[in-house]
Amino acid sequence: VTLLLAIQPSGGNWSPPAWHERFSARLPGRALPIADVDVFDPAAITAVAAWKPPPGLLATLPNLRVIFNLGAGVDALLADPTLPQHVPIVRVVTADLTRRMTEYIVWQVLDQHRRGPMLRAAQARGDWLAKDQWAAHDMRVGLMGLGEIAQDAAAVLVRLGFQVSGWSRTPRRLDGVTTYAGADGLAPFLATTDILVAALPLTPQTRGVLNRRLFEGLARDGKLGAPVVINVGRGGLHVEADVLACLDEGILGAAVLDVFEVEPLPAASPLWRHPRVTLTPHNAADSDPDAISGYVAGQLLAFEAGQPLVNVVDRRRGY
Amino acid sequence: VTLLLAIQPSGGNWSPPAWHERFSARLPGRALPIADVDVFDPAAITAVAAWKPPPGLLATLPNLRVIFNLGAGVDALLADPTLPQHVPIVRVVTADLTRRMTEYIVWQVLDQHRRGPMLRAAQARGDWLAKDQWAAHDMRVGLMGLGEIAQDAAAVLVRLGFQVSGWSRTPRRLDGVTTYAGADGLAPFLATTDILVAALPLTPQTRGVLNRRLFEGLARDGKLGAPVVINVGRGGLHVEADVLACLDEGILGAAVLDVFEVEPLPAASPLWRHPRVTLTPHNAADSDPDAISGYVAGQLLAFEAGQPLVNVVDRRRGY
Repeated sequence: VTLLLAIQPSGGNWSPPAWHERFSARLPGRALPIADVDVFDPAAITAVAAWKPPPGLLATLPNLRVIFNLGAGVDALLADPTLPQHVPIVRVVTADLTRRMTEYIVWQVLDQHRRGPMLRAAQARGDWLAKDQWAAHDMRVGLMGLGEIAQDAAAVLVRLGFQVSGWSRTPRRLDGVTTYAGADGLAPFLATTDILVAALPLTPQTRGVLNRRLFEGLARDGKLGAPVVINVGRGGLHVEADVLACLDEGILGAAVLDVFEVEPLPAASPLWRHPRVTLTPHNAADSDPDAISGYVAGQLLAFEAGQPLVNVVDRRRGY
Repeated sequence: VTLLLAIQPSGGNWSPPAWHERFSARLPGRALPIADVDVFDPAAITAVAAWKPPPGLLATLPNLRVIFNLGAGVDALLADPTLPQHVPIVRVVTADLTRRMTEYIVWQVLDQHRRGPMLRAAQARGDWLAKDQWAAHDMRVGLMGLGEIAQDAAAVLVRLGFQVSGWSRTPRRLDGVTTYAGADGLAPFLATTDILVAALPLTPQTRGVLNRRLFEGLARDGKLGAPVVINVGRGGLHVEADVLACLDEGILGAAVLDVFEVEPLPAASPLWRHPRVTLTPHNAADSDPDAISGYVAGQLLAFEAGQPLVNVVDRRRGY
């Protein structure tokens, strides 16, 4: 199997040469051409390691047998209408990526639960606030999407004592978590959620799901007063205008956003300086090329040995 | 047993009438006089529920058999030189208090590990930072003091993937935690600690232990560059002038303080506006009068039934 690296050039960890170095260490002695850099015979390529590859490129590879997407979300890849229809796509599911996302979710849930923004503002004013902190068992955290990441985060949130619920497309059972599923399960899930964490893939069904109507369905009888939304999935999940309007109307108490429709977030966006928005630069779970190249190389070697691929995308569901 | 409530009046949860209401519900039909409010016969008092009682009061109770301290730290109580020497003192160890402290420790460790202050400053500038977030397994968290609170926090930090070590006066073993003990164990413990969490009782031995010499012993080869100190114990553990000087000299990268020598922290303290200090108003673990009155009432009833007291203070060690 000859592996083509088709990776959009970008800073830091995402540069094609940095990935090439990692894959060379994992797959010694193997030709690993880089798209748009090296000359290669399209017919020789049987596997691709892809991150936002040049649109149309994958369609030019007649003997392609597997596509490894170098991230958990395949929305960018599936957006290419020329993507070969019958080649399996493998997405990244590594303990490293999952744990990083859990760190972020737990961090930001705690920051809202413990009223970090209010305490920091009080510090800046020199104001010693009177004590009235509720406990984790008074706070209802709802995870929307119950994939590997949400399951791991839920386990830590349960351990910390939060009331944790989860919603997924199809029914799931999780220890210590009240679960809801499908269209009928959404309203009761939202009605008992003070802090909503969206850890959903971006698909045609989930685009814009974090909108005014959903926010209006969240609990309003919780300790925080107005509910909070945390989006760690994709920017396309939330409707930015609805987030801003709902914050200003008190329908949302705060928003924590790691992802945006356009990234980097444009300088003109009012999100940057909104007093009740916490914004991070899509760094909830930085990809670690060591962990991901190890995962991809392991699957590639197993595939060559006739083993089945794992974490293959179901194109009908879109993840 | 007649229980005297000897509680320093203070706001919110700590008002003597609020405590009286809780204890009355737990111990129906029993006389529960409040010191400095109700008239009572000193000879009739056999137990006291105390929080910073009037100095000298406890010495006037000839038949006192047990003192229940309404908090985990007994330093304020032991500071009264007239305190009866042979009456057992019980301190609060409740799952509620422990979990609240764990929330705070995990929250603040994550906030430093994930560089919350830097990200918030970047947001305020409208600056989309390049990605370079390390993982929890790259970060060494050292817990100084390994009592109930630190043990619980350590378990969650281990679950999140941090490298966790701990130091205690006498040797302890904890799953997944590298432990050190005693005077000889301090230097190697500090040398491998990027984020130091002090969860120690305040005793003559620990007063001022968080000083320049200790800070100079912390790791300087970690991801954060300069190490971080988090004090959730008592203000008397840290030397404020050393914290400030070490921050300004780069010996410390940041300090997170929930406790102070004088509380509320005086308006003139430079800690309020230091850019690398995170300060909270001694609310890491708010006491829940429901949980604490239940704990004390349960011990009182067991004591009356001839059962041994638990969590009795060892006056020689001071906690």
